[in-house]
Amino acid sequence: MAAPIIHGGGITEAAARFGGTPENWLDLSTGINPCPAALPEIDARVWHRLPDRHVEEAARAAASRYYRTGELMPLPVPGTQAAIQLLPRIAGQGKRVAIFAPTYGEYARVLKAAGLVVDSVTCAGDLQAAHGLAVVVNPNNPTGRRFPPEEILAIAEAMRAHGGLLVVDEAFGDLEPDASVAGHVAANDNLVVFRSFGKFFGLAGLRLGFVVASRTIEDLFRDWLGPWSVSGPALAISAKLMEGDTLGIKVGIAERKAALDAVLLGAGLDVVGGTGLFTLVEHERAYDLHAALCEAHILTRKFDYDPRWLRIGLSPNAQGDRRLAEALNRMGV
Amino acid sequence: MAAPIIHGGGITEAAARFGGTPENWLDLSTGINPCPAALPEIDARVWHRLPDRHVEEAARAAASRYYRTGELMPLPVPGTQAAIQLLPRIAGQGKRVAIFAPTYGEYARVLKAAGLVVDSVTCAGDLQAAHGLAVVVNPNNPTGRRFPPEEILAIAEAMRAHGGLLVVDEAFGDLEPDASVAGHVAANDNLVVFRSFGKFFGLAGLRLGFVVASRTIEDLFRDWLGPWSVSGPALAISAKLMEGDTLGIKVGIAERKAALDAVLLGAGLDVVGGTGLFTLVEHERAYDLHAALCEAHILTRKFDYDPRWLRIGLSPNAQGDRRLAEALNRMGV
Repeated sequence: MAAPIIHGGGITEAAARFGGTPENWLDLSTGINPCPAALPEIDARVWHRLPDRHVEEAARAAASRYYRTGELMPLPVPGTQAAIQLLPRIAGQGKRVAIFAPTYGEYARVLKAAGLVVDSVTCAGDLQAAHGLAVVVNPNNPTGRRFPPEEILAIAEAMRAHGGLLVVDEAFGDLEPDASVAGHVAANDNLVVFRSFGKFFGLAGLRLGFVVASRTIEDLFRDWLGPWSVSGPALAISAKLMEGDTLGIKVGIAERKAALDAVLLGAGLDVVGGTGLFTLVEHERAYDLHAALCEAHILTRKFDYDPRWLRIGLSPNAQGDRRLAEALNRMGV
Repeated sequence: MAAPIIHGGGITEAAARFGGTPENWLDLSTGINPCPAALPEIDARVWHRLPDRHVEEAARAAASRYYRTGELMPLPVPGTQAAIQLLPRIAGQGKRVAIFAPTYGEYARVLKAAGLVVDSVTCAGDLQAAHGLAVVVNPNNPTGRRFPPEEILAIAEAMRAHGGLLVVDEAFGDLEPDASVAGHVAANDNLVVFRSFGKFFGLAGLRLGFVVASRTIEDLFRDWLGPWSVSGPALAISAKLMEGDTLGIKVGIAERKAALDAVLLGAGLDVVGGTGLFTLVEHERAYDLHAALCEAHILTRKFDYDPRWLRIGLSPNAQGDRRLAEALNRMGV
């Protein structure tokens, strides 16, 4: 069993160590939209009954339009993590795994825990016939590296040559729909796309993601998850929100992101990457910066594999921006 | 891949075949409390954030008191089904599985789909050294067979003699807490208890169950499920409801169960088993009875392995009781 990864969102532990209550911490350690979409009305039956097929089908149809998957209906899963946990089963008997690194740590943790050999790669040229599975996060977390769709498709083609699969995690893809390859899955049956519902809509507590895959791979995931894997409220809420005012959400996120970057640049920090939902800064002593922000009860995300990096998420409002600016100002970065 | 099981709850399909809208069907095909507990207020942060550790810990502490597990903290899982899907991994390399049958079909389906040999057993004497895992549902679904705690503990002891595990599914155990062995897990590290939150509280859409297991087995389940497997709303709601008025819920269920049995006995049906949340009747032509009730837009549960059985769940109110009574009366069973 691999050691657990210290993820963002750990304000309970942070408050226990640095004081304050979790409610009063400013949590900038995740990439979740800090201004959640308003919850639609939920029919009482959705809470009461096992998730009905028509509720699931409505969510799948909405996801198909929202993610532009054409005739393929995305499969709802209880969070992208649930799909990651199943990846060892499609990695190919006796094959190795290639992960475009550095990236979200759960891929390597889960695959290694299952006994697979994982290689860090950076370009299609690094792929070998021994790789049964490749994983790309696009845009990448935490670097913000973008892989254009044609590059993704070339990687998929390279994997296909030896019977391998490519998983593309587009968890932060909602703000850049033209960069998605979800619409290419129907024509590329060795391509699998993971989408996250909670980050863009600000509803990570729901636990909902979608797997866009060929019918054969979708059937495997469905069988491994078993019936009713996603809660009724998650299905009902997502169906309504994906058909609702997503432009308003985008505008709100863009405003928060601009405010965050203004604070970081104003403090003289070196912005080296990010997506619409977080910014990556590089700093000689990022761990000290992380600790100093903890003293101000502001949680950010540091990385054990690169002590110069700090990932900072969006604050919910101008008051949060000021609180971050003042903390950075006090420590004179 | 084993064929999917036709479960209760399929009113979408039933309405497509027999007419009417899902909303207007009387669904008696499940064992879910038809009168859901009132939903407590949910903090907006619970929807927004990845489930925080303090939210999970509150649910675990409430579950420990409610299920009387002593110092063991039950592990929340996204529905009992999620735990069933992981059972092949603890069945023991090269071992067979013993299932006390007939019972809930997902156990045999999932274990067989993973390539395991499954034996149907009826008593402790049927267990062999080759069995790495035994499964008992108590009280049993659909028969209502009760295994006294001392019998369960004797089965666990028999399994231990050859290094095997015993899983006890107490999905319908809330109404009979003295029959639970959840409090014995701490002293029996080869005993694992599954509890279902949604049936008794009438909130199956939430997708929440608990696994009561030794620390070693709990760690395996936790690792296989990965972080944040249960939604924040499910954790928050369960913590409040398990500490709330469970006596009122019991009284409500008892009243509905008495009304159901009065209707069934009044129609001259032969009641052969059940639990507080459903009744099993035996009838020469149970399939015809099932079809005739479908014509009246009332869904019950038939069984492919016994064409004489029909399982009938509680109706939500006196109007539902009358509707069932009139349908049975019309067909003159």
